[in-house]
Amino acid sequence: MDTMNDEFYMSLALDMAERAQGQTGINPVVGCVIVKNGAMIGLGTHLQRGSGHAEVHALNMAAGQAAGSTAYVTLEPCSHYGKTPPCSERLIAEGVIRVVIACEDPNPQVAGRGVRMLRDHGIEVEVGLLRERALRLNEKFIKYILTKQPFVTLKSASTLDGKLATKMGDSKWISNGAAREIVHTLRHRHQGIMVGVNTVIADNPSLTTRMDVPGIHPVRIIIDSSLRIPLDAAVITDGLAPTIIVTTESANTVSKDALVAAGVQVLICGEGPRVNLKEAMVKLGELEIGSILLEGGGTLNGSMLESGLVDRVILFFAPKISGGGAEAPGTFIFPGVELMKDAITLQGVEVETLGDNVCISGTPVPRGNLAQGVTTP
Amino acid sequence: MDTMNDEFYMSLALDMAERAQGQTGINPVVGCVIVKNGAMIGLGTHLQRGSGHAEVHALNMAAGQAAGSTAYVTLEPCSHYGKTPPCSERLIAEGVIRVVIACEDPNPQVAGRGVRMLRDHGIEVEVGLLRERALRLNEKFIKYILTKQPFVTLKSASTLDGKLATKMGDSKWISNGAAREIVHTLRHRHQGIMVGVNTVIADNPSLTTRMDVPGIHPVRIIIDSSLRIPLDAAVITDGLAPTIIVTTESANTVSKDALVAAGVQVLICGEGPRVNLKEAMVKLGELEIGSILLEGGGTLNGSMLESGLVDRVILFFAPKISGGGAEAPGTFIFPGVELMKDAITLQGVEVETLGDNVCISGTPVPRGNLAQGVTTP
Repeated sequence: MDTMNDEFYMSLALDMAERAQGQTGINPVVGCVIVKNGAMIGLGTHLQRGSGHAEVHALNMAAGQAAGSTAYVTLEPCSHYGKTPPCSERLIAEGVIRVVIACEDPNPQVAGRGVRMLRDHGIEVEVGLLRERALRLNEKFIKYILTKQPFVTLKSASTLDGKLATKMGDSKWISNGAAREIVHTLRHRHQGIMVGVNTVIADNPSLTTRMDVPGIHPVRIIIDSSLRIPLDAAVITDGLAPTIIVTTESANTVSKDALVAAGVQVLICGEGPRVNLKEAMVKLGELEIGSILLEGGGTLNGSMLESGLVDRVILFFAPKISGGGAEAPGTFIFPGVELMKDAITLQGVEVETLGDNVCISGTPVPRGNLAQGVTTP
Repeated sequence: MDTMNDEFYMSLALDMAERAQGQTGINPVVGCVIVKNGAMIGLGTHLQRGSGHAEVHALNMAAGQAAGSTAYVTLEPCSHYGKTPPCSERLIAEGVIRVVIACEDPNPQVAGRGVRMLRDHGIEVEVGLLRERALRLNEKFIKYILTKQPFVTLKSASTLDGKLATKMGDSKWISNGAAREIVHTLRHRHQGIMVGVNTVIADNPSLTTRMDVPGIHPVRIIIDSSLRIPLDAAVITDGLAPTIIVTTESANTVSKDALVAAGVQVLICGEGPRVNLKEAMVKLGELEIGSILLEGGGTLNGSMLESGLVDRVILFFAPKISGGGAEAPGTFIFPGVELMKDAITLQGVEVETLGDNVCISGTPVPRGNLAQGVTTP
């Protein structure tokens, strides 16, 4: 049964924001509910970068009746002129008398300014209701706004012995239908999808979002240090989404020119022979890719994880054991630690069962902070 | 809230039987509740092989007042003279008028005889209430009574990348305290505990049951094809439980004589160089070891699993990733399958979270029966 209180309305605002994940690019997802005289008079959600903010949509719906109302907003209203006028001004102008905010603006340079502007105009402001949920919802936005680098979610599906495929390379199918459906929702919710060139050569995947309802295809990002990608690969020819090839200075310039001619963007990251992944994250951030779903093989997964570039790990386990030792590719291939206490550890672990598959997810504890359990920003 | 019906009493009988797991040896666990005029007049549980059956204890508690009563029994009452007189006779003699049974005797040679004897004497008999729970409770007994071979539970604790230890062999500690406590309860509930000699050489474990309340130590079974076990190993010298060394004909007879002199039983299983595990299971069954907890390294785990000798798999996963590739020991080391559809699959998968650890368990589908999902007996 419901209890109608502040949480009742804020949770609807969060629900609306949650559904918009994946469609706001590097912008946050935000929801707003306006309540007056015991009833909702406006609802709004930020839908797309460059379009109206949640508060504006909600106030528009309220159609001039918002004087004396309470606004529930999942993120601190902005106080600056960006692509749209500041929402705080609009809330003031409309005569809202109370604003309940789930979480502050994560950008330390502007955090608190919106709240201050509202309070300076006599509006009652409360901050922090359902804050954890609101922060989690915008973890990609928060990482990007603070670091200008993409939030990376590493996803894999393996057997119980940690294998991505058999020794013959067969992987169809490890995980069940429910797990594979979730993966497509994850693709929708990330701006980029990253794999190594070996995956392209072996499987020629399209790396698009395929769901019962149409979704948004992420930008395909292929790590290919020596430009071995075939020019007829689906990610180059199918035109379903932009493709970025990340390579090195040591790659063949003829190949590079051919790729550019084929409409692909080529990023040079490092001298080689391996791609400098840290540099790649910086450059992808400069291209305004704020989130990446990493669906790599063991080597790329291991390198990204060891480099501290992974912000969330989502592992699907199928109840299978396929053996094969070193011949069968594992989920994480990297030199590894010497002592178990130094292993890369996930915190905030969540476990979800999907039929006979299990999803274990968490956030890697940054190396050097193992004892404290410090979270990534 | 409780509803007092047949299930209400049967579930208590099952609860009693459940608590007795581990203390009845190759015998089943059985519970019995006797109800008359709306109240319980007797409770009983089979406690130890060779001692009274559940029905006898319950009828003894009823002290001659059982005429006209209903008896709830988790397993079909016996009809033959074994180590004790048949329970069916006693129920008849005491004047019980109704018997509710959870599951039939699994032994096809005697199944139904107890029920028939009761019915022949005009007693109303119902069979099948909470049958699945009762069968699961006695899965070890059922396997042993049908095959004369031990029920094997494979237990491991690994990282998310399927490693039992780092490349340096460090494994302390992978799993958390809650997971380690469960392992000791598992030891109590198996008659034997099996490891490879490399585990003994590396860790010199005692392989005993250590819990907040004292438990029963399993018989230590060491797979040691060439008798490399040190004579001063804890399992040989500590006297806490019997130890059986399983070896081959090719092992050094001097070592064998020294082990026998040290009070250890040595089983020869196969010509060598590897132990014939199928023969080992037969011989351990002959020694009336009806259940084994396998806490092996990857090679022993892989061999047992591939040989179809594992009846249940219990895997604890800690939220760690330790890498190390082939240098770091994995949970299952065996040649492996070529196609993912031929992987060893677990059915009846159960998932339990223990803090930030996850326990995934299930029953390996016998090879060749993958499509049908046939259960092991």
